[in-house]
Formats: sequence, C-alpha cells, structure tokens
Amino acid sequence: MKIEHLGIAIKSLETSDNLFAKLLGKSSYKQESVEREGVTTSFYQLGESKIELLEATNPESPIAKFIDKKGEGIHHIAFGVEDIRAEIERLKAEGFVFISEEPKDGADNKLVVFLHPKSTNGVLVELCQEKP
Amino acid sequence: MKIEHLGIAIKSLETSDNLFAKLLGKSSYKQESVEREGVTTSFYQLGESKIELLEATNPESPIAKFIDKKGEGIHHIAFGVEDIRAEIERLKAEGFVFISEEPKDGADNKLVVFLHPKSTNGVLVELCQEKP
Repeated sequence: MKIEHLGIAIKSLETSDNLFAKLLGKSSYKQESVEREGVTTSFYQLGESKIELLEATNPESPIAKFIDKKGEGIHHIAFGVEDIRAEIERLKAEGFVFISEEPKDGADNKLVVFLHPKSTNGVLVELCQEKP
Repeated sequence: MKIEHLGIAIKSLETSDNLFAKLLGKSSYKQESVEREGVTTSFYQLGESKIELLEATNPESPIAKFIDKKGEGIHHIAFGVEDIRAEIERLKAEGFVFISEEPKDGADNKLVVFLHPKSTNGVLVELCQEKP
C-alpha cells in the first residue's frame, strides 16, 4: 500500500492549475473528466504519488457539495493497492464501511472504491488499483 | 519534491492508532511529542511517504482548534525538500505567503515551515527538510 494520490477540491482548474504549477515547481501532466463523478481532474506527479485537483462539472457534483460545505481544500486520500477486491474484503473484516463495495472506473485508468469517512476518523479514503 | 507525509488531526491516539493500524495493515513505527506545537504524533510508513496522526496535548494546540472548527480529518500535507531555505525563497518570489518564514524544529528530525492556506487554495502546506 502507498499513497497513490491526494485529491484537492478546487473551484477553478484554470486558477488552481496555475497556482499548483508554481507551488510544486512543475506542470500538470494530464487533465481528465470523469462525467459519472461530475469532476474534471488535473494530475501532478510527485515521486511515487500524485496530486489530483478536482473541479466540479455541475452543481450536484460531490466536489461542488464539498466546497459549499467546507470550502476548497484536501478532499480525499487514495491508497494504491495491488488487489482492490482482496483489500475490500480485508477491511470489511476489520469493520470498515464502504460507500459502495463495488469498484468503479475512476480517473487515470483506475478501479476505485471509497470508504465511509465515519469509519475512518473523518478522512475520506479511496482505494485504487491500476486496471488490468 | 515528494509527499513526505500527510498530517491527520485526531482526538485520541489510543483510538486512532488502533484504527489506522487496521486500515493500513501495519503498526505505527514511532510516537513523538512536539511540546512547542502542542501535539503528540504517531507515524506510519507507506512507501516513500508517511501518515502522521496528530493529537492535541492541550486545548490551545492548533490541532485542538482545528478539530473544534472542522472535526477530525486531514490537517496538512508536507512536501519533503532538499533545501528548505532555497524553497522558501523560490515560493516567496512566486507570491506565496508563509505563516512564519523561519524554519523550526518539527517532529521526526525535520526543519519545517508552513505556508498560509489562504495562498494555497485552503490547503495547509508544510515544507520539511531532514535536519543536517
């Protein structure tokens, strides 16, 4: 398990891509929309991990709701795993609760699931596995 | 630059060390108090990065205030840099604002500074450098 990426909710990719390029000293290597999740993403590589900026594509997007409630900021942490289904079973056995237990297609060629933050100290945790 | 660690504000290390050991599938490798910051920390290694749990040691601790305001959750992201003073100068020239521009002793044998979240999209960003 490693930190695959850190998701940051932002209002405007145009503004924040400029800001994070200055902060990280490098440019975004990819922008990608995930229509089912209502987000456009922008990725920065940092060592073995990534920063993922998340802009809402519509007012019903989870990112729009997050920003309405908490403002811009860190939205989730994603742990990269080798076998997402085995990891879901391991964590369920430990008592963790998932928002959905069925992995879905995420950005960046990944299968993803989210744990419920109530079971993880208020931290929204994503598990992701590179698609075969 | 890499993600050196991710800081998570929690109410009780006793509770959360148990929870994160289950979540990450490994134990904390170190607990350490930083009295000047009013925190007790617990570290987990994940690849080249770490998870740092942060418990307040007194009600005036920044961590106690964070939890009062926002609840438990992700508190800051720390970028590991080779030369913290050069990085401070680079970021100041880019227009970023620091909470203090003078590096201080942090946990885990590091020199640390924090950028002001108003200049970084609401994200509390730490820079840290291994002490010589």
